[in-house]
Amino acid sequence: MKAFMDKDFMLNSETAKHLFHDYAEDLPIIDYHCHISPKEIYEDRRFNNICEIWLGGRNDDGTYFGDHYKWRVMRSNGISEDVVTGNADPLTKLKAFAASLEMAIGNPMYVWSHLELKKYFGITTPLTPDTAEEIFNKTSDMLQHDPNLTVRGIIRQSKVHYIGTTDDPIDSLEWHEKLAQVKDLGFQVCPSFRPDKALNIHKAGFIDYMNKLAAAVGKTQLRTVQDVIDALYSRIDYFKAHGCKASDHGIDYVMYRPASEQECDEVFQKAMAGEKLTREEAEKYQTAILVALAKKYHKENIVMEIHFSCERDNNKKMFALEGPDTGYDMISKTISGGNLSAFCSHLNDTDELPKMIVFSLDDGDFRQITTLLGCFQSDEVPGKMQLGAAWWFQDTKSGNLKQFNDLAELGLLGNFVGMLTDSRSFFSYTRHDYFRRLFCNFIADLVENGEYPNNDASLKKIVEGVSYYNAKRYFGID
Amino acid sequence: MKAFMDKDFMLNSETAKHLFHDYAEDLPIIDYHCHISPKEIYEDRRFNNICEIWLGGRNDDGTYFGDHYKWRVMRSNGISEDVVTGNADPLTKLKAFAASLEMAIGNPMYVWSHLELKKYFGITTPLTPDTAEEIFNKTSDMLQHDPNLTVRGIIRQSKVHYIGTTDDPIDSLEWHEKLAQVKDLGFQVCPSFRPDKALNIHKAGFIDYMNKLAAAVGKTQLRTVQDVIDALYSRIDYFKAHGCKASDHGIDYVMYRPASEQECDEVFQKAMAGEKLTREEAEKYQTAILVALAKKYHKENIVMEIHFSCERDNNKKMFALEGPDTGYDMISKTISGGNLSAFCSHLNDTDELPKMIVFSLDDGDFRQITTLLGCFQSDEVPGKMQLGAAWWFQDTKSGNLKQFNDLAELGLLGNFVGMLTDSRSFFSYTRHDYFRRLFCNFIADLVENGEYPNNDASLKKIVEGVSYYNAKRYFGID
Amino acid sequence: MKAFMDKDFMLNSETAKHLFHDYAEDLPIIDYHCHISPKEIYEDRRFNNICEIWLGGRNDDGTYFGDHYKWRVMRSNGISEDVVTGNADPLTKLKAFAASLEMAIGNPMYVWSHLELKKYFGITTPLTPDTAEEIFNKTSDMLQHDPNLTVRGIIRQSKVHYIGTTDDPIDSLEWHEKLAQVKDLGFQVCPSFRPDKALNIHKAGFIDYMNKLAAAVGKTQLRTVQDVIDALYSRIDYFKAHGCKASDHGIDYVMYRPASEQECDEVFQKAMAGEKLTREEAEKYQTAILVALAKKYHKENIVMEIHFSCERDNNKKMFALEGPDTGYDMISKTISGGNLSAFCSHLNDTDELPKMIVFSLDDGDFRQITTLLGCFQSDEVPGKMQLGAAWWFQDTKSGNLKQFNDLAELGLLGNFVGMLTDSRSFFSYTRHDYFRRLFCNFIADLVENGEYPNNDASLKKIVEGVSYYNAKRYFGID
Repeated sequence: MKAFMDKDFMLNSETAKHLFHDYAEDLPIIDYHCHISPKEIYEDRRFNNICEIWLGGRNDDGTYFGDHYKWRVMRSNGISEDVVTGNADPLTKLKAFAASLEMAIGNPMYVWSHLELKKYFGITTPLTPDTAEEIFNKTSDMLQHDPNLTVRGIIRQSKVHYIGTTDDPIDSLEWHEKLAQVKDLGFQVCPSFRPDKALNIHKAGFIDYMNKLAAAVGKTQLRTVQDVIDALYSRIDYFKAHGCKASDHGIDYVMYRPASEQECDEVFQKAMAGEKLTREEAEKYQTAILVALAKKYHKENIVMEIHFSCERDNNKKMFALEGPDTGYDMISKTISGGNLSAFCSHLNDTDELPKMIVFSLDDGDFRQITTLLGCFQSDEVPGKMQLGAAWWFQDTKSGNLKQFNDLAELGLLGNFVGMLTDSRSFFSYTRHDYFRRLFCNFIADLVENGEYPNNDASLKKIVEGVSYYNAKRYFGID
Repeated sequence: MKAFMDKDFMLNSETAKHLFHDYAEDLPIIDYHCHISPKEIYEDRRFNNICEIWLGGRNDDGTYFGDHYKWRVMRSNGISEDVVTGNADPLTKLKAFAASLEMAIGNPMYVWSHLELKKYFGITTPLTPDTAEEIFNKTSDMLQHDPNLTVRGIIRQSKVHYIGTTDDPIDSLEWHEKLAQVKDLGFQVCPSFRPDKALNIHKAGFIDYMNKLAAAVGKTQLRTVQDVIDALYSRIDYFKAHGCKASDHGIDYVMYRPASEQECDEVFQKAMAGEKLTREEAEKYQTAILVALAKKYHKENIVMEIHFSCERDNNKKMFALEGPDTGYDMISKTISGGNLSAFCSHLNDTDELPKMIVFSLDDGDFRQITTLLGCFQSDEVPGKMQLGAAWWFQDTKSGNLKQFNDLAELGLLGNFVGMLTDSRSFFSYTRHDYFRRLFCNFIADLVENGEYPNNDASLKKIVEGVSYYNAKRYFGID
Repeated sequence: MKAFMDKDFMLNSETAKHLFHDYAEDLPIIDYHCHISPKEIYEDRRFNNICEIWLGGRNDDGTYFGDHYKWRVMRSNGISEDVVTGNADPLTKLKAFAASLEMAIGNPMYVWSHLELKKYFGITTPLTPDTAEEIFNKTSDMLQHDPNLTVRGIIRQSKVHYIGTTDDPIDSLEWHEKLAQVKDLGFQVCPSFRPDKALNIHKAGFIDYMNKLAAAVGKTQLRTVQDVIDALYSRIDYFKAHGCKASDHGIDYVMYRPASEQECDEVFQKAMAGEKLTREEAEKYQTAILVALAKKYHKENIVMEIHFSCERDNNKKMFALEGPDTGYDMISKTISGGNLSAFCSHLNDTDELPKMIVFSLDDGDFRQITTLLGCFQSDEVPGKMQLGAAWWFQDTKSGNLKQFNDLAELGLLGNFVGMLTDSRSFFSYTRHDYFRRLFCNFIADLVENGEYPNNDASLKKIVEGVSYYNAKRYFGID
């Protein structure tokens, strides 16, 4: 039996240990997609206790912060909402979380939490209701005093080279500007362009957002789809000037419904008049905007990320109480493949298809997507079209292994741009450690099984590439 | 090499052996969902030979009984229907089944059949055409004479604590009443409420069934949807008074189409007039009934089970000859997730969402369902919303392992209510043995691999919980 | 660690080695479905170098030949189209392919390529940019001079017993006739009936094809659907007289929309008038033709193969440049199960359901299809209805293992008709070696794990059956 999470955790052969410890373990991290706050990085925030990071709570404005993955674990153990997101004291919360963790055998939350305790606090005792208080006290003390446990300290000791935040087109990027002026910051923080609100023509708040977008480009009003596109292009230029290397799109499913400029304008004006759109109408507008954005991304060498097959805010009662991103989302099953193919082909017709990383929340899509993307590879860059790393609910042991295997069997695993955190927490960099262990073990199994030669130079190239260098090349990071 | 099905069958590590033999193996069984006959239990039926249990045949009224899983195995081996379900003599049937089994490597039927021979008859010789006659004679002799091989004897020696049968709302529950009066029965038999016929407004026989339902509550006619609901509520009260702890719904797919009371009444009256309904119309009625039932279940603390994604009676010719449940069913792929989410949210709005166990016959649904159910957990009970154990065609080694893994990664495996038989046979309790072996081995692998600490108290709690105590708590069984 | 692809490659237990080396390895091959050219067999073609086989190029008429699996690997590594399919010299192409292979860890292409080098050239050095020239020279020399490396030599040394080619109904079968007259050919080459063009009423070229079909049966015009059926029946008779044992259908999805003869005729005449059809109209015609063909296949004892869930020619720009089958296809997700069930049931009603092998490109369909086919087994032949071997993008390690497991758990693995190449290359027979290794190892694992007795006679029967004898019996090959 292997000891719980020892140094060779998840590494089941000598080859796996060699690849991880000698090549992967110490490489820097490129976290090309996450949701952490540039403001908190600039201000080099300190935390009072581990619950502030792990379990969060309520901001002054009534919104919630914290890790909704953990809230789900607690709710599944019958913990009351008062303790999950409410006003219970931090130690009570930590004990309730610890009790829930006991039942979470096989859940990545079990491993992630303990990797974080080990990496940042040197704690190897399992977190249980019995050990919770001691762990609370020790971590609180360290968080309040250890210079390596401010936000910047955590990032630096995690060897993070590059952070791509997620930002709205109308964001001023003031914190990115300030961070760019910090000497010896030790890592790069660049904005990523996420124009979801400009796509959500069928959702509440669209008119208001359009007006803000107009204001952001010095206009009083956007009257046509071309006006919207012009405004977004202008903001992309602004983002690009601030180092933006990636865009991101969170969509329910991939739509593709090309229509004439006039049709799209009619849809847009109908929406701006406050009228309800049919799904077909919304898709016409969305297709026009996505196509226009993709062309601009290609021109500016910005990577286009697409996330889909998520159904959000399922529990309407709790959504009304707590708002979005509070742990009430699920995997959705969509028929996106045909549309994604048509979308790529449309852009490819005029050589304007950007580099693209595609993430579906449904692991049943991985094999289809990989074969789809294989139809649009080109000599612009090796692995131009990428199946994204296992995302969110799929970011588990079996989810990652399925992603590795599907990409290996149906594409080229060696060109994979690898892991990101997609995280709202500064402790999540340990997921890169977990990912690299899984990856090295996966590769090593193929070698141990005689399916790939034990050629150390090739293995080193693959492991270092997927851990770090492929993403560096792909995003054009210095 | 491990010996064929020896005592450590499926247990691949010392931890697995320890967990199974020391904690799981001897716990009682809660078989919370099955299709066995309370009448046969009351009458303590004896069988003449193993074919009566395994391969069945035709009842006096022309309907068929027996294990259609085994019929499928035989048909796939080219055995003629005369031997599969027809009038061939029992030994001929057993020999043909034995010959088919030889080709059934990797099929759970191979293992189940031999587990039953071992458990109830002490036979460890593999069943082949050569050994069939000897096995036939030995098992016939034991079935005819061994006091432990009457129906009650089988149940008692299987350490069954609780049996939840499957009963129609109009059932008189006379056999349950009689069983309740048996002293020293040694196990509990409670009815479960299965109102499928009251939902099947689009199928033949609905009008007739509505009239029977009316009669069962002392009415001459049901005129409105509210009348149907009132009748069903009355029968739920009756079932509850007879110990009912669970309901069950077998539906093709999960529908959700809320409509006004007037619309639903119009649909109902159209159906009662013998007119054909559109799918949309049927869904309006079905949604109204399902919502009403769920609210009642919540009020009465009755667990709601839902089974879906099965397409029945595919071979129309054989259906005409043999009727339902004769081995002509298949996995269906449905888009049920969104509707199930909306259904749960609707009930949750008014705090009337019952405890729910969801079974899809499509293993591609497991991960979606688990994330969906995670949106509706609450502090009423740990694991209020449950992904059901791998069902029917998924009740295989890989199906169970996928269910364990998906639940572990996306929910809390430790709160799982575990296995049921869903069986029409009194020998199927061995599937609990098989399940517990798979489960202990799954848990042990995580520990052996360093992904969960080797904390015996926690492992014992998880293994005993999933084997027995979780279901006992969840269903409120004494 | 196992040496790279040594003699026990993929065989992880003594049982696996025994089953493979003693039973499977030396059995002949029945390649019941492939795309190789009977003309090249008759002419006993020689190749100048390995690139002609592996990477191909352009025919004199501008069409492309070669292995589009390998082109996809190269494109995914950023190789320019000039090298992939263009005019670059062969050694440059081979070096670029070798460089791409390095990144292809876990891709079956890595293993297949090296199995071919080993089997046909005795080369065990991994192919890399460094070794490419030496390998190019050695293989060129052997291809140009070795008598075992003409097309017939390759087939004979591969121990091929039977080749089923893929032929259009209007094909004259002249090369099959000539091959039938060759003495001591050492293997059989029979045509298979692939009438896709007669089904594709919604695609360009249909009218032209109908005219050619009319000409092939000595008519000037086909005026009704019955005329089309008569023509196809006539061609089936012709194929049957030339040894045809199988038909094949490549369809986007399985349709089932029965309609009256008059409706179908109207659709047909509309199409022949050049008018555009709705999807529903096309399905009516297609259903009528498929049903009629299936009945004829049943009558003539011809196996019906169906391939579906593939979306072809996704990259429209490259399709315009290079045409079909150039590496721009993807897995499609279709809802075919219900229609396939209805189609089978329709034919079964009148006892006219032919033997059928069903291939879906979506591995998410395997379990559904297996349960579906289990509804239509009969005593005509063991395993009348077959889940086909893992096809195309699923023909990988995990794809084959999933197919074995799904068939084993939900059907009878022992009756499986096994592997085919589906190949355009004469070197692909090594895939049978790979398949047999995977299969023996899969079977052996079940025995090693105690899930099936170590009964050598049964294991031999299963392994030899799946490797060779089941297909021989199923197709009625002498």
